[in-house]
Amino acid sequence: MPKLHHHPFSAASRYVRLVLAEYDETAEFIEEKPWLRVPALLQLNPAGTLPIFIDDNDTVVSGGAVVAEYLLETKGARMGEVRLMPEHAADRAEVRRLVEWFSQKLHGEVTNYMVTEKVYKRRMGAGEGNNSPDPAAIRAARANIRYHLQYIGYLAGRRNWLAGRELSLADFAAAAELSCIDYLGEVPWEADESAKAWYARVKSRPSFRSLLSDTLRGVPASTHYADLDF
Amino acid sequence: MPKLHHHPFSAASRYVRLVLAEYDETAEFIEEKPWLRVPALLQLNPAGTLPIFIDDNDTVVSGGAVVAEYLLETKGARMGEVRLMPEHAADRAEVRRLVEWFSQKLHGEVTNYMVTEKVYKRRMGAGEGNNSPDPAAIRAARANIRYHLQYIGYLAGRRNWLAGRELSLADFAAAAELSCIDYLGEVPWEADESAKAWYARVKSRPSFRSLLSDTLRGVPASTHYADLDF
Repeated sequence: MPKLHHHPFSAASRYVRLVLAEYDETAEFIEEKPWLRVPALLQLNPAGTLPIFIDDNDTVVSGGAVVAEYLLETKGARMGEVRLMPEHAADRAEVRRLVEWFSQKLHGEVTNYMVTEKVYKRRMGAGEGNNSPDPAAIRAARANIRYHLQYIGYLAGRRNWLAGRELSLADFAAAAELSCIDYLGEVPWEADESAKAWYARVKSRPSFRSLLSDTLRGVPASTHYADLDF
Repeated sequence: MPKLHHHPFSAASRYVRLVLAEYDETAEFIEEKPWLRVPALLQLNPAGTLPIFIDDNDTVVSGGAVVAEYLLETKGARMGEVRLMPEHAADRAEVRRLVEWFSQKLHGEVTNYMVTEKVYKRRMGAGEGNNSPDPAAIRAARANIRYHLQYIGYLAGRRNWLAGRELSLADFAAAAELSCIDYLGEVPWEADESAKAWYARVKSRPSFRSLLSDTLRGVPASTHYADLDF
């Protein structure tokens, strides 16, 4: 069985878990501490980031966007028609632009701050890093989520799914980020009805179930986290 | 003819110029000021970054990695065999991992500092941004380039090209970054023979010529910049 080195609050790992589930693939999940630089993991991925996917043939692939393209090419095509990536180059470019937007920009401006401050710093043991909280980081994330949510609402309001007519990798890249933030109760859903309606549709997919059962010792999920009618 | 909104010292723009030239494609180049947030460009690319490629059919594609994949799908395949991207999924994943490494990590840790401090800040007009130099940024970039050069040397020393046996997008993503830094005389080539030999090979390709003739008013190129036997 393939292996996935991940952390439940690594948004890129969640993205890969969603894509795997959409392709009806399973993997053995190995939980890592993303705040540590573990030599064995650096050997697999010099960037030191999660997720790292190891396929049955020992192919090692790392990084959310890169693993998703790999799964698309190796597993997505087995399902008759390739799923989660449109056929035409222009539409594919729009999917890739949005995957980068969510996994780099939204991640860097919101999720990374939230997860580092509210999850990773609570998990760090003695000598595992600087775990003193940074209120400025949380404030920045709370300001930034508002315009990201608005952009998601804008996209969802004029298209069927975020990148166009069909459900695509872009929807899962966005939902993976938002699901981390939503667990922490930090998505101001009331600010954008259109974004909320889109998220409810993604969240209802069977591929989302494993994310909704994630729990974190000492940090309970927001009351509506697993609620499909939030 | 397609259009490319670019700046000569935007490494991602250089990457796209190299890929275009490798595919024997031309485009009308429109120079932008990447330090400004121009409404007309933000409408084309909400991320506000260069390059932005507009194809003959008015398809708008933005971001170096995304444009390169688009060119691969629309132009690369027309040349009999697809060039710059290997056939097998595992090898493609390695190309994409390295493109991300160079255009995100090397860029963020080296090129962006160098170009912002030494090029963009000199170009900024009154009211176009904070143009006071930051010596700490240059120091960080000078420290970081050394381990990036070492990694390039390590890859080039055990493979024919950076991502494997064949020349690929990864070589051009790396060379696009290094060429900006090399113009400024900030690549310590003496520190890694293997990296230097690899760069000499990439630099000798006809696709590189237009980059080597780039000049910047007030900032002359390093003496060896356009020298193929540097």
